[in-house]
Amino acid sequence: MNEFGVFGMGTMGQNLALNIAERGFRVSAYNRPDKFQARIWEALERAKIEGSKEGKSMMIEAYTSLPDFVSSLTSPRRILLSIPSGRPVDDTLEALAQLLSKGDVVIDSGNEHFIQTERRSKMMLEKYQIHHMGMGVSGGEYGARNGPSLMPGGTKESWQRVSDVLLAIAAKAGPNNESCVKWVGPGGSGHYVKMVHNGIEYADMQFIAEAYDFMRHIYGMGNIEIAAVFSNWNKGRLRSYLFEITSEILIKEDDQQSGNFLLDAILDQSGQKGTGKWTVQEAANIGMAVPSISAALEARFTSARKAERVMCDKVYSRVVPPISVRGHVGATAKKAGLEALEEALYASKILAYAQGFTMIKAASDEFKWNICLSDLALIWRGGCIIRANLLNGISAAFKQVPDSPSLLFDSSFAEELFTAQKGLRQVVLEAVGEGLAMPGLASSLSYFDSMRRSRCPANMIQAQRDYFGAHTFKRIDKDGSFHATWARPVNSKL
Amino acid sequence: MNEFGVFGMGTMGQNLALNIAERGFRVSAYNRPDKFQARIWEALERAKIEGSKEGKSMMIEAYTSLPDFVSSLTSPRRILLSIPSGRPVDDTLEALAQLLSKGDVVIDSGNEHFIQTERRSKMMLEKYQIHHMGMGVSGGEYGARNGPSLMPGGTKESWQRVSDVLLAIAAKAGPNNESCVKWVGPGGSGHYVKMVHNGIEYADMQFIAEAYDFMRHIYGMGNIEIAAVFSNWNKGRLRSYLFEITSEILIKEDDQQSGNFLLDAILDQSGQKGTGKWTVQEAANIGMAVPSISAALEARFTSARKAERVMCDKVYSRVVPPISVRGHVGATAKKAGLEALEEALYASKILAYAQGFTMIKAASDEFKWNICLSDLALIWRGGCIIRANLLNGISAAFKQVPDSPSLLFDSSFAEELFTAQKGLRQVVLEAVGEGLAMPGLASSLSYFDSMRRSRCPANMIQAQRDYFGAHTFKRIDKDGSFHATWARPVNSKL
Repeated sequence: MNEFGVFGMGTMGQNLALNIAERGFRVSAYNRPDKFQARIWEALERAKIEGSKEGKSMMIEAYTSLPDFVSSLTSPRRILLSIPSGRPVDDTLEALAQLLSKGDVVIDSGNEHFIQTERRSKMMLEKYQIHHMGMGVSGGEYGARNGPSLMPGGTKESWQRVSDVLLAIAAKAGPNNESCVKWVGPGGSGHYVKMVHNGIEYADMQFIAEAYDFMRHIYGMGNIEIAAVFSNWNKGRLRSYLFEITSEILIKEDDQQSGNFLLDAILDQSGQKGTGKWTVQEAANIGMAVPSISAALEARFTSARKAERVMCDKVYSRVVPPISVRGHVGATAKKAGLEALEEALYASKILAYAQGFTMIKAASDEFKWNICLSDLALIWRGGCIIRANLLNGISAAFKQVPDSPSLLFDSSFAEELFTAQKGLRQVVLEAVGEGLAMPGLASSLSYFDSMRRSRCPANMIQAQRDYFGAHTFKRIDKDGSFHATWARPVNSKL
Repeated sequence: MNEFGVFGMGTMGQNLALNIAERGFRVSAYNRPDKFQARIWEALERAKIEGSKEGKSMMIEAYTSLPDFVSSLTSPRRILLSIPSGRPVDDTLEALAQLLSKGDVVIDSGNEHFIQTERRSKMMLEKYQIHHMGMGVSGGEYGARNGPSLMPGGTKESWQRVSDVLLAIAAKAGPNNESCVKWVGPGGSGHYVKMVHNGIEYADMQFIAEAYDFMRHIYGMGNIEIAAVFSNWNKGRLRSYLFEITSEILIKEDDQQSGNFLLDAILDQSGQKGTGKWTVQEAANIGMAVPSISAALEARFTSARKAERVMCDKVYSRVVPPISVRGHVGATAKKAGLEALEEALYASKILAYAQGFTMIKAASDEFKWNICLSDLALIWRGGCIIRANLLNGISAAFKQVPDSPSLLFDSSFAEELFTAQKGLRQVVLEAVGEGLAMPGLASSLSYFDSMRRSRCPANMIQAQRDYFGAHTFKRIDKDGSFHATWARPVNSKL
């Protein structure tokens, strides 16, 4: 009898199975007897080779029969699904429900929409007394094999039944080598935070792309020089996985065009798989502003419309932005400019993470998930794509004030933002003046300037809504809803 | 027997019924026999008074029995629903289907999500051979009574069956007093364009709020002076309903605080009813960037978080934006600054409408609706909230190139944007320098600068995605998808 089942031997499933086996658990691996069946033999082969290389015996048994797979597992059974989201998960749960017993645990490790996970968790528990968990997994193929960041959501009981395995396979981070996994909360909470994780990832990536663009265009810097700058920044407060790989990306040679850099040959059309889109859509559903994330998503959309951009470039080639607002001149201009850019990236990063955490808090309140934001920051410190030094500070901030509605109120971050926002402002000014689009950084600054306005001009919008739609308004000086008798305009012809 | 039925005697239904009766159609009015039943007698009373006032006899019959209501209508029956969206529409269709005959037409005039309308149209036609139309209605209470802008979607046949009434009641605009209604397209297309109409409305309102804010803060202008500026602008290319009411709003006295302006007493928290949110969510679903609209939506969300803004204002009160980039100095500074602001508003308006029309074109292609963008611009010239002078030019542009992917390619608009973008850039620079949030204008400028980049830094994003997720990338110099063997980083501890 084996201790843990992995259902689906695609890239992620295979690597997770190897990771689990390497930690000493006996694994049953299942794949449908279809054209991808060979993946399972590949997994066994890898277990033999990678196990012997590290002097560990990795125990994986292969199954292509579902009943045999299920029977091979000790009770309560624990099965991790690594299959495409949507319909395949419903079909698989249907099939498994016939074979599993009360109290067994199924973990969906895909990027599923949390609403689906909420629905399935409820249904599986009510109908079969089976625990369905939704778990965010970040770190890609490499993370799955060597230590991912894990965001499991589901009943507390189910977490207790699977925590030994998850704690063993997760990435380790922090001074005490803590596992990057903690119980996130009930229902779809695990998939929800993974969704927001990916939204933050979009913002982080967009900031880096804009900084790269800025250095090329404003200072005419080449790839090697830019790589050195990122590498240098990566030693400081901006230390993060994405900075690390950015330096490597910049200097990678193009094997199809020797002497050139690969990056320069890559088409500037970015794709997306949907989680960033979901973040923006769900933020809107709970009425939260995440401008850094939505700007990053929209930048991807704009990038995809390459043909139109090429045409626009021609149409507007005469637009020479007329306004120079270089913050620094003379010999030290570039040095000071790059310092401002570092501040800009740091300020934007704080602002994007602040938006993400505030959104999660709002969802946690709305769905009664009771997510611990401080813990969440901890499990993102290792294994995942957005792992960054900054998360230590974020965890500390929410440890101090667990219910804080925003990171912006934390005194340490406030102190840092005081300074860093100056660089952000300077960089956005230069970019606007030069006509260089920086939607990510500019939206982050807008968020900052919007949030620190105790009185904003939304009174005008409320007046207009009451004027044409009788939507009523509130007053600053007394309670209640009011409706004014505005002049009825002539139905003007325009 | 009567010619037209109106189901639901709420504010909108009542005013639409009166409008239809006033045009000489015999109307059957229905309301459920519930606590709001009295509305129907109110409608009859208004028909008597308002009809006699204008020397017209308005024929409205009241019904509270559904079978009697349906029987009172000539065949093919035509019934307009004016009820809350969602479940009530499903229930009503269910009930009506039992009483109607093949070929009858039901029009949902609410703000329904187009996906629901698509579903219902299909179901009603297949199951009952009844035509279910989804029609956008803009213009509020006043428009409903005196002439709304109408955006009907559904089968071509159903349009032919109801066009006499819709053409008669719609607003009139243009040199030949054309009716502001045309058949939009099949299925949910009418509700889709109404959704985007509202998204554009959000952007327009946000731009105005920001301009108002700018004038107060940068030039210390008071309400009367600002009203005069809007009023003056409303004589030129920015002429629009929203500018018209803005001037009135600014100078309306507060009847609770005599001598004060009402606007100053209105709380700066704006609400929303969902259509702007849908626009942003649906834009994401079809991969279109609508940054002016999403910034406007997010500005409403930010405004709603008043308590947090007040707290942030305190925390960051020390932030004195250090950078002055006043474009103009001396005695003529204000005059030149206001000219730049006019340009900024005009450029942003073009950019927001461009986003909206491009989004509609994408949806029309996706859902095979074949929407005529030139016609759509025409029906928005009168009656609706976003009616504006600009729409004449938009209609002309799409008449010239019906399949144009963007308004930005039109030579007249390009010429205007050449000039106006300078003012937009100047205003955004001043606002950024002064620390005044202008998310709407700034996002519009970002969109412009993003769209005119033939080569953008998305190659970095694609490289990162391929690095950590093996998502592959395309090259600028050859076809196909590529995956690079990036250095496998040590699973770094941060």
